[in-house]
Amino acid sequence: MTQYVYGKNVIRQLLNSDRKVYEIILSDTLKDRSLQQSIREKQIPMKIMGRKKMDAFLRCDNHQGIAAKIDAYKSYSVAQILAGIPKGKQPLLIMLDGLEDPHNLGAILRSADCVGADGVILGKHRSVSLTPTVAKVSTGAIDTIKVAYVSNLTQTCKELKQQGFWVVGADAQDAQDYRSGQYDVPLVLVIGSEGYGISSLVRKNCDYAISLPMEGTVTSLNASVACAVLLYEIYAQRHPLK
Amino acid sequence: MTQYVYGKNVIRQLLNSDRKVYEIILSDTLKDRSLQQSIREKQIPMKIMGRKKMDAFLRCDNHQGIAAKIDAYKSYSVAQILAGIPKGKQPLLIMLDGLEDPHNLGAILRSADCVGADGVILGKHRSVSLTPTVAKVSTGAIDTIKVAYVSNLTQTCKELKQQGFWVVGADAQDAQDYRSGQYDVPLVLVIGSEGYGISSLVRKNCDYAISLPMEGTVTSLNASVACAVLLYEIYAQRHPLK
Repeated sequence: MTQYVYGKNVIRQLLNSDRKVYEIILSDTLKDRSLQQSIREKQIPMKIMGRKKMDAFLRCDNHQGIAAKIDAYKSYSVAQILAGIPKGKQPLLIMLDGLEDPHNLGAILRSADCVGADGVILGKHRSVSLTPTVAKVSTGAIDTIKVAYVSNLTQTCKELKQQGFWVVGADAQDAQDYRSGQYDVPLVLVIGSEGYGISSLVRKNCDYAISLPMEGTVTSLNASVACAVLLYEIYAQRHPLK
Repeated sequence: MTQYVYGKNVIRQLLNSDRKVYEIILSDTLKDRSLQQSIREKQIPMKIMGRKKMDAFLRCDNHQGIAAKIDAYKSYSVAQILAGIPKGKQPLLIMLDGLEDPHNLGAILRSADCVGADGVILGKHRSVSLTPTVAKVSTGAIDTIKVAYVSNLTQTCKELKQQGFWVVGADAQDAQDYRSGQYDVPLVLVIGSEGYGISSLVRKNCDYAISLPMEGTVTSLNASVACAVLLYEIYAQRHPLK
């Protein structure tokens, strides 16, 4: 299966990688000689499109006038993620509610690999997709951590709770200190979007919320940084020092 | 005092901010109409320079043909940082040995503010400087966390140890689990560069090294992520849950 990825930086990174590019679509208004030069040098088939047609074709308007067709990064269903968890391992899933920044997704995949998490769940709508930028920032974890896109995060929370998972949200409001949570259980850690946090419906379906102490003037950590601090607290509880 | 910052993204971000720009230098080969248009709209004085002259003037060759003169972000001496630590507070400094990525520096400043650290120390040579990108990623912490640039990190380690600090390096080699360190003492946490870790001379001057467990296939966390996990472990030891 193939997919289209877009954006000047993403395409530049793609052209510098070994990944096969089947086709490049350029808007007829794009003016970037160095990018066009690289595409010609790599002898990738080019297609020129009007801006409006391109918006419709890619179903977005932030493609910066350039898109590439590549083999899709593999994603999974939640059932496939659950089936892949080794017997005897305490399951750990990360749910990203509205995360938008590919650097954050890449960094979270990297941290997820480091603590031995079993998978990452994102909403199908308004979420960052698996792009070459995500792949690069993940330093390879895009191939080791299974990612599932689901159409309804709230529904997925409910289903996972029925299967014995605890759903814990990272949220500054009505939360307990992150060190007081009980993590040696099948767990879904929910991280909200960079700007708005966890959406209210998903928040209602969390068993409880945890927060990190904030001592200074900044009111929140970066989403991928907060995620890593929480993942290592979960890891520490599950693997106490002897 | 003013300073020159450079790079297309940095200048774009600067032009979108409220920060005063005194002058823009463009290389005579730069072709970026939208950027030139923005500069004209903001009525900032422009100076055109040959590429080689610009390299010499800025003492670098990765300026991408554009630089801006702005008020310098304030930095401090180590003595000033130490003098500013409130009486009765357990001091916490972060030393960044060779860190190169402005996003990482910005993220570390943000995390440093969140845990109430007292300052960040960088080497004068080969270190990332305080740019608008750092400022943006720090979400304001560039103005709350004091940054010192020193000419010799090893010497600074020695001086801080004489003043009662423990110097603890984040390093995967010959390290103990990060949870077994003793952090409720005056502390310098040393974080190495993205590619090469802590340099050997600085490493020799660390009292001991700590590492994070790595369960997966990725062998290290992102530098700013690792720093935050360690900072919160230090915080947790100093502020135990009641």
